Order: sequence, then C-alpha cells, then structure tokens
Amino acid sequence: MALTSEQTEEIADQRGKSQPTLRPISAALEEILYQPLPVLDHGFVRVIDYMGDDSAIVQAARVSYGKGTKKVNEDAGLINYLMRHRHSTPFEMCEIKFHIKLPIFIARQWIRHRTANVNEYSARYSILDREFYIPTSDQLAAQSKGNRQGRGDLVEGKEAQRVFQLLKEDSEQVYDHYIEMLNEDDTGKIIDEKNKGLARELARMNLTLNYYTQWYWKVDLHNLMHFLSLRADAHAQYEIRVYADVMLGVLKRWLPITYEAFMNYRVGGAVVSAKGLAALKKMLGGETVTQETSGMSKGEWNEFSALLKA
Amino acid sequence: MALTSEQTEEIADQRGKSQPTLRPISAALEEILYQPLPVLDHGFVRVIDYMGDDSAIVQAARVSYGKGTKKVNEDAGLINYLMRHRHSTPFEMCEIKFHIKLPIFIARQWIRHRTANVNEYSARYSILDREFYIPTSDQLAAQSKGNRQGRGDLVEGKEAQRVFQLLKEDSEQVYDHYIEMLNEDDTGKIIDEKNKGLARELARMNLTLNYYTQWYWKVDLHNLMHFLSLRADAHAQYEIRVYADVMLGVLKRWLPITYEAFMNYRVGGAVVSAKGLAALKKMLGGETVTQETSGMSKGEWNEFSALLKA
Amino acid sequence: MALTSEQTEEIADQRGKSQPTLRPISAALEEILYQPLPVLDHGFVRVIDYMGDDSAIVQAARVSYGKGTKKVNEDAGLINYLMRHRHSTPFEMCEIKFHIKLPIFIARQWIRHRTANVNEYSARYSILDREFYIPTSDQLAAQSKGNRQGRGDLVEGKEAQRVFQLLKEDSEQVYDHYIEMLNEDDTGKIIDEKNKGLARELARMNLTLNYYTQWYWKVDLHNLMHFLSLRADAHAQYEIRVYADVMLGVLKRWLPITYEAFMNYRVGGAVVSAKGLAALKKMLGGETVTQETSGMSKGEWNEFSALLKA
Amino acid sequence: MALTSEQTEEIADQRGKSQPTLRPISAALEEILYQPLPVLDHGFVRVIDYMGDDSAIVQAARVSYGKGTKKVNEDAGLINYLMRHRHSTPFEMCEIKFHIKLPIFIARQWIRHRTANVNEYSARYSILDREFYIPTSDQLAAQSKGNRQGRGDLVEGKEAQRVFQLLKEDSEQVYDHYIEMLNEDDTGKIIDEKNKGLARELARMNLTLNYYTQWYWKVDLHNLMHFLSLRADAHAQYEIRVYADVMLGVLKRWLPITYEAFMNYRVGGAVVSAKGLAALKKMLGGETVTQETSGMSKGEWNEFSALLKA
Repeated sequence: MALTSEQTEEIADQRGKSQPTLRPISAALEEILYQPLPVLDHGFVRVIDYMGDDSAIVQAARVSYGKGTKKVNEDAGLINYLMRHRHSTPFEMCEIKFHIKLPIFIARQWIRHRTANVNEYSARYSILDREFYIPTSDQLAAQSKGNRQGRGDLVEGKEAQRVFQLLKEDSEQVYDHYIEMLNEDDTGKIIDEKNKGLARELARMNLTLNYYTQWYWKVDLHNLMHFLSLRADAHAQYEIRVYADVMLGVLKRWLPITYEAFMNYRVGGAVVSAKGLAALKKMLGGETVTQETSGMSKGEWNEFSALLKA
Repeated sequence: MALTSEQTEEIADQRGKSQPTLRPISAALEEILYQPLPVLDHGFVRVIDYMGDDSAIVQAARVSYGKGTKKVNEDAGLINYLMRHRHSTPFEMCEIKFHIKLPIFIARQWIRHRTANVNEYSARYSILDREFYIPTSDQLAAQSKGNRQGRGDLVEGKEAQRVFQLLKEDSEQVYDHYIEMLNEDDTGKIIDEKNKGLARELARMNLTLNYYTQWYWKVDLHNLMHFLSLRADAHAQYEIRVYADVMLGVLKRWLPITYEAFMNYRVGGAVVSAKGLAALKKMLGGETVTQETSGMSKGEWNEFSALLKA
Repeated sequence: MALTSEQTEEIADQRGKSQPTLRPISAALEEILYQPLPVLDHGFVRVIDYMGDDSAIVQAARVSYGKGTKKVNEDAGLINYLMRHRHSTPFEMCEIKFHIKLPIFIARQWIRHRTANVNEYSARYSILDREFYIPTSDQLAAQSKGNRQGRGDLVEGKEAQRVFQLLKEDSEQVYDHYIEMLNEDDTGKIIDEKNKGLARELARMNLTLNYYTQWYWKVDLHNLMHFLSLRADAHAQYEIRVYADVMLGVLKRWLPITYEAFMNYRVGGAVVSAKGLAALKKMLGGETVTQETSGMSKGEWNEFSALLKA
Repeated sequence: MALTSEQTEEIADQRGKSQPTLRPISAALEEILYQPLPVLDHGFVRVIDYMGDDSAIVQAARVSYGKGTKKVNEDAGLINYLMRHRHSTPFEMCEIKFHIKLPIFIARQWIRHRTANVNEYSARYSILDREFYIPTSDQLAAQSKGNRQGRGDLVEGKEAQRVFQLLKEDSEQVYDHYIEMLNEDDTGKIIDEKNKGLARELARMNLTLNYYTQWYWKVDLHNLMHFLSLRADAHAQYEIRVYADVMLGVLKRWLPITYEAFMNYRVGGAVVSAKGLAALKKMLGGETVTQETSGMSKGEWNEFSALLKA
C-alpha cells in the first residue's frame, strides 16, 4: 500500500485538528482514526468516523436519560445477556464509517451485505489507478477436493510460476489497453490528439477483476458483527477474511466489552441442531452415538464431530 | 414536559463532560446535545449523538482521502447537485440519534419508516408513566369534509368541553385500573399483599393510545430527510408534524448547507407529472388549458392549479 | 372471530375462481387460500398469495434455467445444507402475503420486524370495529418472578374476576366514547346533528391497546423464518406466539422440505457459546464442569444446563 | 444470446405444465413466462415468477377482504392517486422474480439497489462461460464533454477498429489464461495431469469486467419502479438502460394500470424546486425570468429550461 504525498498530507491534516465534543469518545479508536491499516498488497481499511461506545448499547437497551449504569461490570452483564439472547436492536445504536480499498472481485462479495451505506469510487467518472492484486505464494492454492467452494493444497513450482506470470502480464496488459482506449493517461493528459478517446464508462470493462476499487462503507454495529461473523470465518475466502480480521481489531479498540461477548457467543460459538442436541444428551448419558443413530447426514455428522473434538 | 430531578441531573452530567475528538463536530448541535426540546404536552426530542457534517457528504461523494474541498461554496454546489439529481448515497454517510417521547398513536405512524434503528421503552418489562396526550383547543378539529384523512373546522363550545372531559376521564381511569391490575404503583410498591398482580405485558393493554412512550431512534440523513419530507408536510397529522418541525430545526443546526438544499428541492419543491409538464408548456406558450384539455382528473387538476397559484 | 356475510361472500368469491398458471403451485396451500384461520378471540391469519415452492429455493441456489434437480431427496439435501450453513439468500426467493387481524399491542411488537411489506387499516380514514381482546382465564398470568419480561402463575379467583371486569368495562366504555366523539356510528350515521364530530385521526386515541387492527403483511421466506424463530419461541409473549404457531402450520403446508429443515436447525436447535463448547468437550471427556469452572455467569449456566437436560 | 439445447429443453419443460390456481394471474405475463428476452449481445431477462395484479394494490390499500373494487376505472383512479401522492406501501404488495444475464460491470451498478433479493451464479463454485460483451459500433462513444459521467460523440474509423481489436483480443486472452490456470476446461476435463489447477475463487480474478454473469433477482413493485425510474432514464448508462427498457415492457404486460400511472407521474414527470416553482409562477404571470433572477445555478437553470422547452 503506497499513498501519494498528497494523500499522506490530507490524512495528517485530519489527524492534526482535535476539537471538544460532548459525545462519547473511544480514546483507543481516536489513536488510529483516519490512518490506513494495510491489507493485501495494495488495500487498506481506514476508520473515518464512529458513533457510540459500549455504554451507548446499555443506554439504548434501557431507554435511559443518562449513560445507563455507571458500573462497568453491570454493563458487561447486560451486553452479554443481549448478545446471548440475540437482542439485536441495542447493538444497532453504534455506527462506524470506513474507507476501504479492495480488489473488485472482493468488493463483489462484500456488497452482498445490503444493510450498509456505500459510496464507491466511480470509474464512469474517474480513471482507476494501476493497482491490481497478486496473491502471495503461500496463498496460491488449488481447488479444494472436499469443498466445492474452497481452497486445497498450494500450487507450487513451475505451475505457480506460470500462474504468477499470467496474472501479472494480463493485468499489466489490460491496463495499458485501458489507457490507450481512454487516450488519456492517469494525470488526464491526452495521448494522441487525433483520437477521441473511449468513454470511461466503457473503457473500464477491459480491466480484470483483481483491480483495486475503493469505497466509503458505513454500517451499524449489529450488521458489522453479522458481516464479521460470516467473513472472519474459516469458510470465507482468504482475500475477504484478511479485511474482516483487521476490522475485528478495530472492534476490539472501539467496544472492548462487546468485542469479548461477540468472540464468545458468535465467533467462537456454534449452532447445534435438534438432532445434534439429542445426540449430545445421549452422549453425556454415556450412550454411543453414530452417524446412523444420530439421524444426521454424513456431512452434518462430520461437522458435528469436528465441533466436539478436544 | 416535566423531567424528574434525577433525569435533569443525568442530562447535566452528560453535558458537563467535554472531551477531545479528531472527528468532525457541529458546534451548533453540541450546544443542544442531550437537552430535551419540548413537543406537545409531555413529549420531547433530544439529540443524543451524531456523525458527520456537510463536508462528510462531499468527502463520500468524492471518495476522497481528506475532507473533500476546502471551499464552502464548492461544497454547496456539489450538495445542491446531489440533492437535485437524487443521488442519495452520499447523504447516507451522516447519522443522527434521537431520544424521543411521543404518544403511542403517533409512534404507530412513525415506526412505519423502516430504515431506522429503534429501541423502545418496554412495557413488558417496566411500568409506563401516567402521562397522556390531550390536544389543545386550537387543535381539536372535526373530520375534514374534502379530505377523508384530515382535519376540518374546530370543534368548539359544549361539544369541545365534552370531548376534553371524555379524553381526560378515560385516560385517568384506564391508568388507575392499569395500576390496580398490576397491584404495584409506579415506584414498584405492592398495593394489596393478597393479590398477585397481572403481568405487565398484559396489563398494558388497558392503556389508551394517547399514552406516551419513548424510544431511541437512530437514522441516516437520507432517511431522515425522507421522513421529514413526508411528516413536515401539510398532509401529515398535526401531532407528528410538530415533531418533524423540531427536527427540521435540528437539521438546520447540524448541516446548514444540506438544510438549504433540502428546503429548496424537497420541502418547497413539487413533482409535476407528464400531463402537468405538457400543460405547463402550453400555458407558457399562451394557450389556455382546462381540466378537460389537460387530461388530468379533477383532483389532480386542483392540486396542479394550487401549485401554480401566485 | 365473526365475519360479516359480505366478508364471507367475498372470500367465497375469491375461492370460486380457479385459473391456469405456469408458475409453481402448492396444492396444500391452495386448499386454505383466502380462508381465515382463527387466532385469539377475534383475530385471524389469512393467506392471500404466495410465490415459489421448495424447488424454487434449489433453483435459485443453483441459478439454473429449469427447476433445479428433479429428485426430491437431492432437493432436501441441498435445503438442509443451506439451512445449516445459514445461506439465507436462496430462501429469500419465496414470498408469502397474509391478511392478519390482531390486537394493537401485538401489532406493535410485530411491526418491529422491518423487512416486510405492510398495509394497515387506517383509523385516520375509517372507523375501527368494536372488537377487543380479552385473555382467557388460563392465560391470565401474574408477572414472572424469575424473568422480568414474562409471565408466572395464574391470577385466579376474585383477583381474576376483578381483572376481567376492568378490562371489559374499560374496553366497552372507551369505544362508547370513541363513537360519541366521532358523532357517527360505525355505519357512518350521524348521531347528533348539532355536533361536528371529532376527526377520526384524533378520536382513535381514546381506544385501548387491546383493540383489534388488521393489515396485509407480505414477507420473504427468510424473514418469515426469522420472525417465526423469535415469535414461535417460549420467550415470546403468548398473544403473538399463537399467531406464529398458526403460521408454522402454513409453512408446513407450503414448503414441507424447508419446514423440516427449519424445525431441526432453527426452532429445535440452539446456539452454544465458546465457553459452552469448551465445557461440553470436557464433559464428554469425563470431567465434571461447574458454573465456576465453566466461566459462565449464573444465568448462562442455568440456560446451558437446561439445554442438556435429558 | 444462444441457449444450449439442454437449457431450451428446460424452458420448454417449464412452459409445458399448466396448473390451476386460486391466485390472481396475469394472462399477458404468463405468455412470456420463463422465456428469455434478449438484451445486448449475450444477455437476457426472463420472468420466473410473479405475485399480484393491479387489483392487489387496491386490495392492500383498502385492507379489504375481497379484491377491492370490481370496477376497473375506480381501481385506476385509486392507483393514480397513490402514485401521485407517493403512497408506496400498496405497491410493495406485488412481487416479481427475474433470471437475468448481464455483464459484470453492469451487475456492479445494478446491485447498488439494495432492496431486492439476489442469488448470483458463483464463480467460486463453478466455471464461467466464455461470453463477454462487445459494444456495437453505434454505441462506441467517446467521453462526453459536458457531462463527466456520460457519453459524447461516436468513436469511429481507425480508432474504433483499434478499440474493438483490444476489447476482443484481451477478452479472449484472459479467458484462455483463466482456463489454463484452472487446468480444467468448461466441461470439467483436466488439461494437464501434472498440474493441480488454481482454485476457482482465485482464477476468476483474471477475467475482465465485460464477462457475463447471471442471477435471480426478485423485487417488489415499489422498488422495481424505483429501479426503472433511475435506470430507464437518459442519464443511465446505455448498457443498463436496455435492461430497464425490456423490464418496462414486462411491467406493461403485468400491471397495465400501474404502468400508465408510472409513465405519467414518474418516468415522464419531473421534480421542480422551490426556486423553479417561484420562477414558473412569475413566467405564467407574464414576467421574464432569467438565470440570475431565478436564483438558480447555471446547471440547474439549463435543466429547468430544457424541461419547459416545447
């Protein structure tokens, strides 16, 4: 991730001006406000603004005139209760706004989370940067054999070299041609005075899906946690999981009590089906349960067994 | 609107503690933060928190690293453009949180605006206050004759006296019986040791719809403006319009540029149909247009004519 | 629940006219289409329309040109997989529309489910019927001692008689006064020619929260199941649970495969926290775990123990 | 647009089986159900299912037991009224489901409409077809000079030839490399037994944004009209407008009364600002109004003048 000097200056400018407010603040989040947290080869996550703290959740749950309780352990007890019983509305009372730079094929997964506010950089209006994602060699994986939408062993040796070559050369070439069709370089300088240049909204279609885009993404805490529970999960594609992991760190700074509850009840927890509960009761009573006697399918039984493995 | 001394103290406590932040602030909104702005006989609107300012809209529209432009008139130009062309997503980048006290029959209209976050005071869990809405005599209106869902002339004299008597006596009586069924006064003291007391979730059904409830209501700016354009309108019921009017004042403090654009393009503007545009073109060309030649229905023609009346 | 002869006729009229369609149909749901399924003393649930069947979920998950698989057991396998892994979007591809009559205090809980389409009977525009909810004696419960938002023992004997008397008399009285203020009976006949009659949007505030309202409620299957998982649950208030129970029966008719998966994974299943999973692993390994060694709070430990009780 | 014989057969299969239903039907829509309506070079729109008809809107607006009015002109009057006064909820009572094939860069615009249900073909799970969009020569436009996000003159002659060459060659090449990296052709046959093949979720990033994707897209009528009002508009990019135009034709078949109202009040109508209304009143009174005296910006004045041009 490389910022231009102008961008670095704008960020420094934003961080330079502290003002008084009567609103709740998060000191740990203010420390990193506006600063790009690097993700992948050219991406980042920047926290731009936030609303609320742990006690705002308590305050809303109680519809109180003040800040709710004054005792931290009472707040934690209530937040744990709300998380355990899936009372989601108090968590909607906190809000956070990010500036995110990410490859387009990841943006296409991300945008499926509909309950958020988004402003994306417009390639109808502006020219995209020459920045594309190339996986590192420890992420260059083959198709999984067991899971039709996941990764398996690493691709290595000559095959890996060839993949890197193709990804890089094609990425470079499509951008060269994008610029040629635009007839305008990324500073806006016209290349060939005899040509008209293709409209931006058309030329962009020649870029590959590993090109980076960027957006402002604003979301309430409930929906952020829903996003994180799906995307910081082992089933998520690596390239979105690394964003979710960075955002988990942001959550920990911002709302330490909620973060702990979230890790316990959502990220580290699991849903057990009626058949799973029945099996568990028998097992705790000393009975042996097999896939057949459990009534579960083979796939479900494997997941169930993995969950209980020490 | 009367606050208890405990509530007044909690508000003073919140207003007493200023802290530094790197986030954008609105000095004019900080001035009234947490303070109840009275509405109707017992209601209020309190701003609890907010995110963003006018330049946050510009920043998001441009997906910029810094605060967008530094020139106020450029910001205003862009905000006007966005409002005029209904580019709604940049306006979603600001957020505001209110604490609102309002009669239940108004809460039932209000909640129809779905794109907002709400935590309502729970009458399953707590006992409601003895506070109900009684209209002032200048709002005691008869059914409109022209508009099947509106108000007409004032109800006056003996009829008005009778209405006030019924509303007040019934409100008092249902609350007396609510408390009697609960077998518990609003301090939690048991009334008759021999009785069990009806569950709160049941006893509440005996209250009339003019009783006050309260909630935390958090909404993004785009949806707030949608709410205000419908509820600060002459067609809205008076008892919700007065809330919207107070919130228009909040908007003016918070985002002065957006407020001006909103008043010009949305509140003071109007939608003209294809038939309306065709009529206008003829009229500007010197032709006389009548309801019949316009192709409009009688109702639409009346609305169209009223719009153009000097 | 009593329908007027006019309403009965309209329903018969709707049921009388069968037409050919190329869309998927549910024969079991067609059997009860338009017919009111009674709930509480005056309420009902009517299915008005529906879109999709079990195979529409498979079709959408596969983005296929035809109906997906032709084998029922493959469909069931995929639907189970989707439900288990919380792949929610294929379930959004089915839609159902209800006409529901329910007490206002229940409508106020119901409406909190925002991702649905609603058209409610307007008391600004029309006069409400003289129909109010009175609990049966086996539902006249005291406040729970353990759960601050639930019911405990039954209220009985003289206390119960007094509660019934208050609820009935107040309900009758507020309606009498509603009509008197309107100066118009529910057939639209003016009562006293000398009076103007209070506007409907005002008079309605004198009604108690046990009065019945009605609405059209349309929802996709994913959000219907979310509603049912919360409202067909033991923690839900009885008066909304009975609606959810009737709607579970509708789901069973409509989408038998999805219904089975929903009952297994959602209604009969449970979320176990990270601490719960850790405790389970120890218990299955033969260790004794107590509340203290589990790290759970007392409340959570009790819930966890109840879950595993044979 | 070319379907495989298998796809053609599946569509014929769906169209072959008519069944009786008590639900409202649209005969004109049944005529084209399941059939692909071609858009662009490889795309299509297929109607898969629908719920409701014009009278369902009336029925919901009235919360009636039957089908609302029996008279078509009364229905039209109410639908016009609802559309004119932006009463949106009755229009939410109709629902439609499409299967759509479209270029990825258009899918990225489309998905910004959040209030819809979507299941997209997964390139993590499956291999995409070798199908990409190339504009026709009458759409090969240069960047607009006046509008920073629009098209201007046609690119012609040698420049056009070069653009077509680049678009086609790059599209072919990235697909060749996609298949090579997958080590698997689109029938699933392994290409080189010595290689592992790159995971699908990675290989897809080498495709350009003009590749076709497909999805099931389900939306209620209110949100469909919002989509159409933005995307069937002259400001929309041509490649999404052609989809919207086809869907307007679908709307006309499905709900003829609503379609007429929509064309009059939304597509053919316009919003006039407070300043615009003030100017209009003066102009109708015989005054001359200029940009300066109108108080409008230059851009707004030009739009306003264009609106009123005969």
